[in-house]
Amino acid sequence: MPVVGMVGGGQLARMTAAAAVGLGATFRVLAESETESAALVTHDVTVGSHLSLADVAAFAGKCDVITFDHEHVPAQILAKLEDDGFLVRPGSGALRYTQDKLAMRERLTALGVPCPRFAPVDSIADVRAFAAGSWPVVLKAVSGGYDGKGVWVCESATAADEVLAHGIPLLAEEFVPFTRELAALVARSPSGQGAAYPVVQTVQVDGICREVIAPAPGLAEDLALEAEALALKIAAELGVVGLLAVELFETAGGGLLVNELAMRPHNSGHWTIEGARTSQFEQHLRAVLDLPLGSCQPPARTFTVMVNLLGGTDPDVFDRYLHVMAADPAVKVHFYGKEVRVGRKVGHVTIVAGPDDDVEAVRDRARRAASYLRWGTEDGD
Amino acid sequence: MPVVGMVGGGQLARMTAAAAVGLGATFRVLAESETESAALVTHDVTVGSHLSLADVAAFAGKCDVITFDHEHVPAQILAKLEDDGFLVRPGSGALRYTQDKLAMRERLTALGVPCPRFAPVDSIADVRAFAAGSWPVVLKAVSGGYDGKGVWVCESATAADEVLAHGIPLLAEEFVPFTRELAALVARSPSGQGAAYPVVQTVQVDGICREVIAPAPGLAEDLALEAEALALKIAAELGVVGLLAVELFETAGGGLLVNELAMRPHNSGHWTIEGARTSQFEQHLRAVLDLPLGSCQPPARTFTVMVNLLGGTDPDVFDRYLHVMAADPAVKVHFYGKEVRVGRKVGHVTIVAGPDDDVEAVRDRARRAASYLRWGTEDGD
Repeated sequence: MPVVGMVGGGQLARMTAAAAVGLGATFRVLAESETESAALVTHDVTVGSHLSLADVAAFAGKCDVITFDHEHVPAQILAKLEDDGFLVRPGSGALRYTQDKLAMRERLTALGVPCPRFAPVDSIADVRAFAAGSWPVVLKAVSGGYDGKGVWVCESATAADEVLAHGIPLLAEEFVPFTRELAALVARSPSGQGAAYPVVQTVQVDGICREVIAPAPGLAEDLALEAEALALKIAAELGVVGLLAVELFETAGGGLLVNELAMRPHNSGHWTIEGARTSQFEQHLRAVLDLPLGSCQPPARTFTVMVNLLGGTDPDVFDRYLHVMAADPAVKVHFYGKEVRVGRKVGHVTIVAGPDDDVEAVRDRARRAASYLRWGTEDGD
Repeated sequence: MPVVGMVGGGQLARMTAAAAVGLGATFRVLAESETESAALVTHDVTVGSHLSLADVAAFAGKCDVITFDHEHVPAQILAKLEDDGFLVRPGSGALRYTQDKLAMRERLTALGVPCPRFAPVDSIADVRAFAAGSWPVVLKAVSGGYDGKGVWVCESATAADEVLAHGIPLLAEEFVPFTRELAALVARSPSGQGAAYPVVQTVQVDGICREVIAPAPGLAEDLALEAEALALKIAAELGVVGLLAVELFETAGGGLLVNELAMRPHNSGHWTIEGARTSQFEQHLRAVLDLPLGSCQPPARTFTVMVNLLGGTDPDVFDRYLHVMAADPAVKVHFYGKEVRVGRKVGHVTIVAGPDDDVEAVRDRARRAASYLRWGTEDGD
């Protein structure tokens, strides 16, 4: 069996490890410590740094193909591995567009993909010129952001000044008054096969994904198809291998704008473990192994709600399984084995519902379960 | 998080390991070697023998609760662990009825559970007396049999003589001309909660399960309820903790007879990974941890076909994934990482189908996938 190595030991690698069990592929993880989420459940764990060429190269040497649970491996390490003949999927040419938001915006715009208006900014004069008197303006770190970190919504030049004071490369973007956020998740194999999951609605609070509903309720079919086609086009044009998640704004006018890209299993796809024939984690493995992609659809007309479990103040989540499982036998709990800290993603819950169930009622059930696991009460956040 | 230890390193432990990832329980395996199916994918592997009190006790000492992927741990080891205060689930009092088929038959009969007519036999005179001129008669090893091993259908006294020559304790049973085989899978927790999966049809060839259809097509609702009730009753009366699989004969007269019992995840329940809200592997973990049991139902009106993948003559199953996955994106392949030997269970394939799909067509698709993985042709066995 081929050996797949995943760089990064977080929950995405952990859930990929579980998917590898079924597929029979040998799965290794390069984790920063023995206690990282994926390291706790993977048979073959290498402890090392994704920032060290020596560590990553030694790891790659034990694998037939390497892939990633984050986008933080430096570009020069990726390029060196490729030069040395290692199979790196997705490759540095694609990953570049997740590591450099300015390059991403420029490339997508060149491809005719609708994006928020943007410009690189170096000074408050640049930001003022971009704003042209219309605030707020969004400032983003060109590289290194995630989960809302590295994104600032600035209501004024004064606020922008504070961000500029960080001294990091920045990008200004128009503030989009979206009606809701969507995500289009697709997979692409080295052979060029593409597969698209149903487009989902995501709910973010303070930049952190809290809830996903699949498929996005009431989404017009033409808009769903447009989102899928956009994501498949981006995957093909950027040469993505594996998963590509395209985070989108749906605007009041019924249009779509691309917000962010990720080239790995994505929080907006956790629902697929129970809700789709092929989970995103298996799909990612299939793609990086250049196997034919699996069906992205549910086997029947179901919909799925996923709610993230954020850390609360009591570290002992397991103690609260009793109540949650007794209250709702349909809830599926996922816990990542991570140390519980307030606001940290430490797990998620999923409910797959039949076609006759009410979406709001199912969302409420999932939220109650996540709230109880977090705070010990169903009515928390 | 609590630590669950599973004694036995086969595919049942392997699939339980994958279920433990989601639940966040720490999972350890006592395997006979580093290359056993579950040992390949489990983070915490102890190599040792389930026949050694020292090995099993040392393993139990590292776990909060121990459970099993087979029934072969000697009764005296189980009893000693219990005496020493270890949590053993299911306990020796229940497991006894999987280790001694005569005790099982006597107990079930005392409970009023319908069984084939049976008698212990020591000699050919006993067998002749049991047959009373009506052949075939089934002889079974009182202990140690599995997958058709330890079961002989004797067409004559001469054939019975050959079995008696093995010199092992035997049981005679009437030969049941069943119309088909069914299996009722239930879970029971130490708190006494029970949960029943939909009753399935199983197809055996030469004593080995080849195919499972869930739910059993065309099964009368009263018979399905009777089978579930029987299994729940047996689980409660025998004090089972964890899963109980009850293999049943459906007779021409529309009756049910209990064939065999297993107290662990069971081949007839592999379909639940994709086909039910709670997989049998998670359910077993929930039960041994005394968590509330999960829903055993599919989230919508689907049915599921599971076909076992037996070993063929070419060991490289992975090579054949390409064809199978390209031919049918809905097929889910499970490979156990075991050395491929002719006739050995090395994996399975599952297809979950919508309510409007044709059962025979789905069975055909699943069989073609398993055949191709085995032989490199869709029309093999």
